[in-house]
This record gives sequence, C-alpha cells and structure tokens, in this order.
Amino acid sequence: MSCWSGLLKLVPLPEKGILGPGDDCAAIPCGRDLLLLKTDCVAEGVHFRRGENPAKVGWKALCRPLSDLAAMGGVPGEALITFFSPPDVEEEYWEEFYRGLGRAARRFGVTIAGGEMSRQPAGIAISVTLTGRVPRRELVTRSGAGAGDLIYVTGSLGGSGRGHHLNFTPRLKEGRWIASRRLATAMMDLSDGLGADLPRLARASGCGFEVDQSLVPRNPRVTTASALSDGEDYELLFTCKPALAGRLESEWKKAFSKTRLTRIGNTTKVKSMPPDWPGGWDHFATSA
Amino acid sequence: MSCWSGLLKLVPLPEKGILGPGDDCAAIPCGRDLLLLKTDCVAEGVHFRRGENPAKVGWKALCRPLSDLAAMGGVPGEALITFFSPPDVEEEYWEEFYRGLGRAARRFGVTIAGGEMSRQPAGIAISVTLTGRVPRRELVTRSGAGAGDLIYVTGSLGGSGRGHHLNFTPRLKEGRWIASRRLATAMMDLSDGLGADLPRLARASGCGFEVDQSLVPRNPRVTTASALSDGEDYELLFTCKPALAGRLESEWKKAFSKTRLTRIGNTTKVKSMPPDWPGGWDHFATSA
Repeated sequence: MSCWSGLLKLVPLPEKGILGPGDDCAAIPCGRDLLLLKTDCVAEGVHFRRGENPAKVGWKALCRPLSDLAAMGGVPGEALITFFSPPDVEEEYWEEFYRGLGRAARRFGVTIAGGEMSRQPAGIAISVTLTGRVPRRELVTRSGAGAGDLIYVTGSLGGSGRGHHLNFTPRLKEGRWIASRRLATAMMDLSDGLGADLPRLARASGCGFEVDQSLVPRNPRVTTASALSDGEDYELLFTCKPALAGRLESEWKKAFSKTRLTRIGNTTKVKSMPPDWPGGWDHFATSA
Repeated sequence: MSCWSGLLKLVPLPEKGILGPGDDCAAIPCGRDLLLLKTDCVAEGVHFRRGENPAKVGWKALCRPLSDLAAMGGVPGEALITFFSPPDVEEEYWEEFYRGLGRAARRFGVTIAGGEMSRQPAGIAISVTLTGRVPRRELVTRSGAGAGDLIYVTGSLGGSGRGHHLNFTPRLKEGRWIASRRLATAMMDLSDGLGADLPRLARASGCGFEVDQSLVPRNPRVTTASALSDGEDYELLFTCKPALAGRLESEWKKAFSKTRLTRIGNTTKVKSMPPDWPGGWDHFATSA
C-alpha cells in the first residue's frame, strides 16, 4: 500500500526532540537515553503460511522489529504482543507461537510486558510493539549519510524464501557495535531488499548513490537480481565516512570473524542512482 | 479467549521495577517518571461493523487505550498504529479512519510516532500502541486496594451498543485528577462491564467486595443487569480510603460538575463477592 505518507498528513506528528515516522524506529527522550519504539506486524498469506511451524512464526514476529532496533543501535527492552485469531485456529497454535516467541525473547533479552488478543473472521495476524534503549549520542538514523560516504552491508543477500525468512538472527550485536563506536553515519535494516531499501536511505539522507552490483554479497545459488530484490534479508545496510573505513574493516574482522562485511559503493552529492538499479526511480518520487 | 495467562508462562516476563502484564498498562522507568505502555486492538465483527463510520472506528481505536492510560493516572504521549487491510477495503476507508484517529489524537494530546500496515485475507483489524507518562509516586494500579476501601464509579453504565461504544470520551482529566491527588488506592477502566471488571480489581488487590446494585449508576432506559454486563462503558472504577472520601466527593463536585461520581460499595477482607454478582465466581478462579 502506498497511502501511508498520505495518511500521516491527517494526524498530528511528533515535534521537538522526538523522532517520528519514517525511520526504523521512533525515538523519544527517556532520562539520559532515548527510548526506541517500533511496531511491526506479520499476517498469514503475506509474511507466513498457515502450514509453517507456528514456533518459527513466533520467532519471526519478534525478530523482525528486533532487526529494526538493531539498525538504530538499540538494546532491546519490552515487547507487547497483539494477536488476531480466526475461528479455525486452536489454542495449541498460539502455544507453539508463544514458545517460538519466548525463545527469541530469551535469546535477545526481551521481556513480554503486555498484550491483547481478539477474534477476527479469517486469517492469523500478529502485531508486535518493541521498546529499546540507546544512549542519545549513539543513535543512528537513516538520514545521516553525507556525500562520499562508503556503503556497507552485513552478511549475504537473497534467497530468503528458502527458510531464512523464518530463521534469521537479527543483527543486534553488530548494530550495537557499530553504533557504540560511532562508525556509521546512517543505518537501516534490509527487509524489503537492497533494491528498495538503499534508495530509502539515500533519500532520507538527501544524497544519491553508486553501487558496483558485482560486489553485492549473495547467498549460494542466488543471482544478483535476487540478492537485490528478494527481501527479508534482515541484514544491516549502513554508511561510513571514508576516514573511518580502515578502522571499521579491521576491527570488524576481529569482532565478527564469521559475518561478512562488504563495501558495495558510495553515496553521491547528486541525488541520482544507477540507471540499472532494480528499485527504479519511483523510489525517489514516492515516500518510503 | 481464556488462554492468555497460560501463554504468558511460555515467555520471559519483566522483573524488578517494571510493571508487566495484568494491569491496564505496563509501566517502565523513564527518568523521573514512569513510561506507560498499552497495546490494544479492534477487529471488524468484534469491536465494530464494516458499515459503521470509519472515522468513528478510528476515534474508538485510539480512545480505548487512552481509557486504559486514564486509569493509571497517565498523560498521553505517542501512538503507533498497525492496521491489517483486506482486499475489499479501499484507501478511502483508511483516510476516514485516520481522520477520526487524528481528531482523537489532537483532542487528547497524542502524536503518531509510527506504524505499520499489511494486507490480510479478510476483515479489518487495527492494533494501537500508546505511550504515556506518570510521576512515579502517582501511579495507580489495580492491586492497591485494601479491605474496607470505598468503591466508586464515574459516569453512568450500560447501553453502550446504542452508539456510546464509538463516541465515548476517555476519562483522562478525571484519572489524572484522581492520581495527582492520590485519592485512589486502586483504579481500572470499565471496558468489559462492572460485572467482569470489579472482580478483577478485587482479585488483583487480594480482597473481596460488597456492592449495593441499586446504587450502580445507569444510563437512561438501561436495567441494572445491563449496566453490569453490557461493557464498553470506558468509565473509571476506583477505590478510596474512607478517610479521604469526604474530600474526594466535595472536590469532585467542584472539578467535574457535569460528571457523576457514585459510591457503590466497599472492599472486604474476606475474598468473596455478592452471591448474585453477574460476573460469577469464575472470575475469581481464572486470571483476568
């Protein structure tokens, strides 16, 4: 749906000191820290199928907003779970769902602070709200990249439909590591695919980009086109000042020896992107 | 669905200093205040019908969690909106919905800090997460009532199906007034009806209650049975120490001359409730 930015014109938005819609999370002042807030959802037939393991759906439902939190350098806090259950779903489904959700919560240090449930006519739907915290000076947004910054992605992209979309590990450690060292000028998580997401980061930062597509890290048996467009990678995309790139790359290898970090291009002053970029120019015309 | 408390055994819950599931809102430390967090939902066919005015549904979607916030003495902050939209719903529906949501947001001082949207196969569903703040010493929970406290309700009960359920005004001013004067030992909002909700407050506080049903304030053309069981009143239910009752009642009249405040009974040391109470004893046996 493309109407989101139009709808936001109809409601009051946050001012002064609060980061509102448009980034991976909202951020509101909370003592010496910023409180990060993210709401995310998964719906049957869109983000998962009925036959898929409910525990894995529960894992995914919590790990998706955790990936957004990672992209802002946050430490996870509390989650609130809302689920809509159709008449043909038994309580056992939700027990399995909660087992998977609980596994993710324990693994990443989240506690469940509340929730709500409702019947609905058809289809399973779940909304998860997640809080997190980040020291004010360590917040990383989508909008901080300057012209000439280098563009990096973590891990490998593409092929998420083979199972990764239900099994991924949000890059919380990596995001915190990058943010606490202030190595990124801008960051976001890759949920819609690099092809759609990189233009969003560039647009938010008011710059363009150049990418060598042959450098984009691909999962096995994945084409470059798929790596750019499959989506649900849940990797981090970020920019780094050239002066810090050497330190970033050498320290990354020591900290995360098993996780790839790949420089794929750079931002540009001219607000343009490669003509063969799969996201297309529309991404610059419409709000993300 | 009765499985909520069972599901909570499968996930990690908050500890030390955080108020988790079971009250109107969760509460987490945020500087000198507590940050209140509430997630609530409305689903087509359960909380509203397709033919009802979408703007009123938007009003309701935000005012329901605002009513929960009122019951903890909170001042509203930000809201995050998640909506699930079936194929047969046009963008115009969501525009109207957002107009009503925006009206409630402006009226009660809420800003929209983010959200998410998804398609789903059938039925409209909306989840709203709301933040608020309350000074630590002014938080009112469900669990603070002591034996012999007097039980009060605001407004009049019953008959919500005639339109009140889409038009109500959350008792934010009244809740803040009660909390800031520390006049309540326990408080909650009436969403499932006094019959179901009062036993929850009593159970959370570890006491019983006695109520003179003839005192329960009723809306015009509503029986006492309906006033106890219709639900969706969105009034406040609270308890007050007898020593403060005189001050409460006289100051209330000056502050809220148009809103009734009715003393309907008292809490008891013995964990029992009137044998003719419509909620039935089951409410004491199962968790709220």
